[in-house]
Amino acid sequence: MPTVLLTLDLIGTFVFALSGATAGVKRRLDLFGVLVLAFAAASSGGIVRDLLIGAVPPAAVSDWRYLAVSIVAGVTTFYWHPFIARLRSPVLVFDGAGLALFAVSGTQKALAFGLNPVMAALLGMLSAIGGGIVRDVLLAEVPTVLRSELYAVAALGGAAVVVIGSLLNLSASAAMIIGAALCFGLRLMAIYFNWHLPTARPID
Amino acid sequence: MPTVLLTLDLIGTFVFALSGATAGVKRRLDLFGVLVLAFAAASSGGIVRDLLIGAVPPAAVSDWRYLAVSIVAGVTTFYWHPFIARLRSPVLVFDGAGLALFAVSGTQKALAFGLNPVMAALLGMLSAIGGGIVRDVLLAEVPTVLRSELYAVAALGGAAVVVIGSLLNLSASAAMIIGAALCFGLRLMAIYFNWHLPTARPID
Amino acid sequence: MPTVLLTLDLIGTFVFALSGATAGVKRRLDLFGVLVLAFAAASSGGIVRDLLIGAVPPAAVSDWRYLAVSIVAGVTTFYWHPFIARLRSPVLVFDGAGLALFAVSGTQKALAFGLNPVMAALLGMLSAIGGGIVRDVLLAEVPTVLRSELYAVAALGGAAVVVIGSLLNLSASAAMIIGAALCFGLRLMAIYFNWHLPTARPID
Repeated sequence: MPTVLLTLDLIGTFVFALSGATAGVKRRLDLFGVLVLAFAAASSGGIVRDLLIGAVPPAAVSDWRYLAVSIVAGVTTFYWHPFIARLRSPVLVFDGAGLALFAVSGTQKALAFGLNPVMAALLGMLSAIGGGIVRDVLLAEVPTVLRSELYAVAALGGAAVVVIGSLLNLSASAAMIIGAALCFGLRLMAIYFNWHLPTARPID
Repeated sequence: MPTVLLTLDLIGTFVFALSGATAGVKRRLDLFGVLVLAFAAASSGGIVRDLLIGAVPPAAVSDWRYLAVSIVAGVTTFYWHPFIARLRSPVLVFDGAGLALFAVSGTQKALAFGLNPVMAALLGMLSAIGGGIVRDVLLAEVPTVLRSELYAVAALGGAAVVVIGSLLNLSASAAMIIGAALCFGLRLMAIYFNWHLPTARPID
Repeated sequence: MPTVLLTLDLIGTFVFALSGATAGVKRRLDLFGVLVLAFAAASSGGIVRDLLIGAVPPAAVSDWRYLAVSIVAGVTTFYWHPFIARLRSPVLVFDGAGLALFAVSGTQKALAFGLNPVMAALLGMLSAIGGGIVRDVLLAEVPTVLRSELYAVAALGGAAVVVIGSLLNLSASAAMIIGAALCFGLRLMAIYFNWHLPTARPID
């Protein structure tokens, strides 16, 4: 993997680990629990994707750098969480960047393992949102991504660009850059304009 | 896979997806969350079975039709859930049919991958009940199947018939038809007569 | 696998299954639910480890003895749970023994599948604590191991000894015995002296 991509991937891991650790601190987990939440939020999406496409052991298990970055994020959050909490806006921006990056790189990996285009896009989306789902399940909460904000749809948009690029035989890097930009832009606009998906009318 | 089996499998997927989407609507998930619940309820059991027997990528990931059927069921439920809710009795009957079909086809697949008879029957049961478990975990609830009604036992009965048929070298189709009929019949009687498994006396 | 190791492994399975079944009885699950909790608590850690290292089908799925031991533990707990509850101290001691054994045998298996040392130790720890996490998630609770007591750290300590022994080319049996003794000793001292990991200061 080129150095640029790896660097971006580790930045995404760091930011997602911050979100997991922050959720763990809020629910009063101990230090070990906070580190588990940090790693789970950062890596579960990619791990599940790798299990589903048959890429074992998953990258987050065989490469120690993902774990190291998660631990640094977890320890940082554990001791300085009031400071992290004050950084909420920058963290949301980085989180959008992580979402964009994981969506396009996850899609690319699924295509490389021969998945069909529709499922490759969905596995890219899963790479990006799966960590947040596992984080919330471990805290016995309904996953946030299932009930609020335009989050998964932004990831799906970015993933779709990569798949369409591959169907049109465009360069993979170009498709990934455009897809990531689309996802990141959609996500920032969703935060800024407070876009939501509809919910069904309540059942009487 | 013969057309008849595939058709039945997709009907089972549709009905299980309805149950997932209905649960999602009740908990006020947004449209994306409802679609995720629909797909998870319909496909998680088969996906976990395929991961455990080493059949990757799982059928529900590599064949787009399972996803398409889940999305149709999810969108239908999202917009017309009062209508679906009024269909509760027919849905319960279809759900029993889905249970029966997933139990026997899951067992057959596990046998084909060389699992021993006892574990093949349990994996068949898991194919049939796993989706409901994941659906409930995503909604932060104790899975219904663990605490009420004769549901898993009906699936296990159907799966056992397939395994016994295979041990006796009977025709696989005959064993699957008898197993599915047993599971479906048990399930309908459990609903009609309100059969339950015992629970332990409370701890004082 | 030598008979001694297998016997110890099955004892660990039995004790963990008791903990799962007891939790299920307390939450008023039916008999099927109690058996599922028993098997999940005893086997999920090893199953997830085997999926991550690519050892499919996992041992707990292909060898019927793990299931048989879980069912015996589950049925025993279902009918005689007041008796089991009175055995709380002995059960805690056996649970520590199961933790120690699963941690070292899980690490050894991960090393044998070529994982790097750090991840092998973490997968050993996951083998030991994963069952308890799945048990709690199925009961819609935040996993105990994430928020209290010195439990995972004891497992990690035992796993680390096995990894260090392998790096120093010591005999695997010696490293496993020392690692298991360290884990077991740490766990008993944590219970006796009520050792805890720190939690973060609350967010105001």
